[in-house]
Amino acid sequence: MELINDLKWRYAVKQYSDEVVSENKIDQIIAAINLSASSCGIQPYRLFVITNTELRKKLAEGSFNAQIHSSSHLLVFASLNEVTGGYINDYITMMEQQRSLDSGALDGLKEMIISHFATQTPEQHALWSEKQAYIGLGTALVAAAAVKVDSTPMEGFDAQKFNQILRLSEKGLHATVILSLGYRDADNDHLASMHKVRLAIDEFSTKIK
Amino acid sequence: MELINDLKWRYAVKQYSDEVVSENKIDQIIAAINLSASSCGIQPYRLFVITNTELRKKLAEGSFNAQIHSSSHLLVFASLNEVTGGYINDYITMMEQQRSLDSGALDGLKEMIISHFATQTPEQHALWSEKQAYIGLGTALVAAAAVKVDSTPMEGFDAQKFNQILRLSEKGLHATVILSLGYRDADNDHLASMHKVRLAIDEFSTKIK
Repeated sequence: MELINDLKWRYAVKQYSDEVVSENKIDQIIAAINLSASSCGIQPYRLFVITNTELRKKLAEGSFNAQIHSSSHLLVFASLNEVTGGYINDYITMMEQQRSLDSGALDGLKEMIISHFATQTPEQHALWSEKQAYIGLGTALVAAAAVKVDSTPMEGFDAQKFNQILRLSEKGLHATVILSLGYRDADNDHLASMHKVRLAIDEFSTKIK
Repeated sequence: MELINDLKWRYAVKQYSDEVVSENKIDQIIAAINLSASSCGIQPYRLFVITNTELRKKLAEGSFNAQIHSSSHLLVFASLNEVTGGYINDYITMMEQQRSLDSGALDGLKEMIISHFATQTPEQHALWSEKQAYIGLGTALVAAAAVKVDSTPMEGFDAQKFNQILRLSEKGLHATVILSLGYRDADNDHLASMHKVRLAIDEFSTKIK
């Protein structure tokens, strides 16, 4: 399948060219991320898509990842700090509307999800939300490669700085993982021509029949 | 792009038919997961691909997710309990071999990664490894849909039971998230015809220019 070729084509770009990714491709990548699965289906993270160079330079201060500002676009995956009853209620109401159901038709589901999260601490909520964002990151990496856009997933950034500058805290969110998008500068990126390293399939996976 | 259609086509299957997924398709899905990105590139998780029905029934005991045994295949994503210096050393040695570099050529990278993890607790290692497994889950969901195989990602399972039965603990691993694969029984799965629910794009994402 084409996906295998796309995954082999991609690598974590170190050096970007100045070429800008078209808005159409960015929109396709965002749409794919929004279609990602999440546990309970309640999408507990949001995406910030930043092109502003001044802002990205500020965000990159102190990080070893120049890709934060040297790429065409920067995606910030920001997860919920807490999965509140209010959030779940709003989401399930939206679900009823999108499925043309009567208001209250999904009360059972709603109560089940609310009571599930009520037994957990906000720290557990945040962690769970972060993991769902990583599913979205997995989709984003594939989506970018599918439209031949290069990318760099990064954990090496100052999350607190991001939370503050992007005012994530006041939105009940926190920066979880980031992804730069752009086009590789193959002549100046020594990683561009490197052989992709992966475990042998039978070391990575075990079949139990 | 085709990916968008694949993502719209997929949903978390509740009711599977008896149809078995071909080994060829399963191998493509595994290959795609193995090609997923991971932070530092060290693939801190392994995959178990289970068809044995007796074993899956045992694993499913006490879970509300019948898909664990009623599907064609069950994938178990199992993350490292600890990212040890030994693990990093072995991985970087493999990297040197796959890239036909002299032994020791990547000592600088190796030391950097080892000292990074040396500042963290095993709990932090485990959590970080779990997040990387979720990137793999994101790829798996896309890969399955790309070969028109249905799937169900699940967090509702007894991880301790999985660790024990699959002897993950003695391998330094722990069950993190699971994914069943198979074919939807559209006539008996009321979710099959449901409208997919997602946030409006401008609610999910914010562009900052």
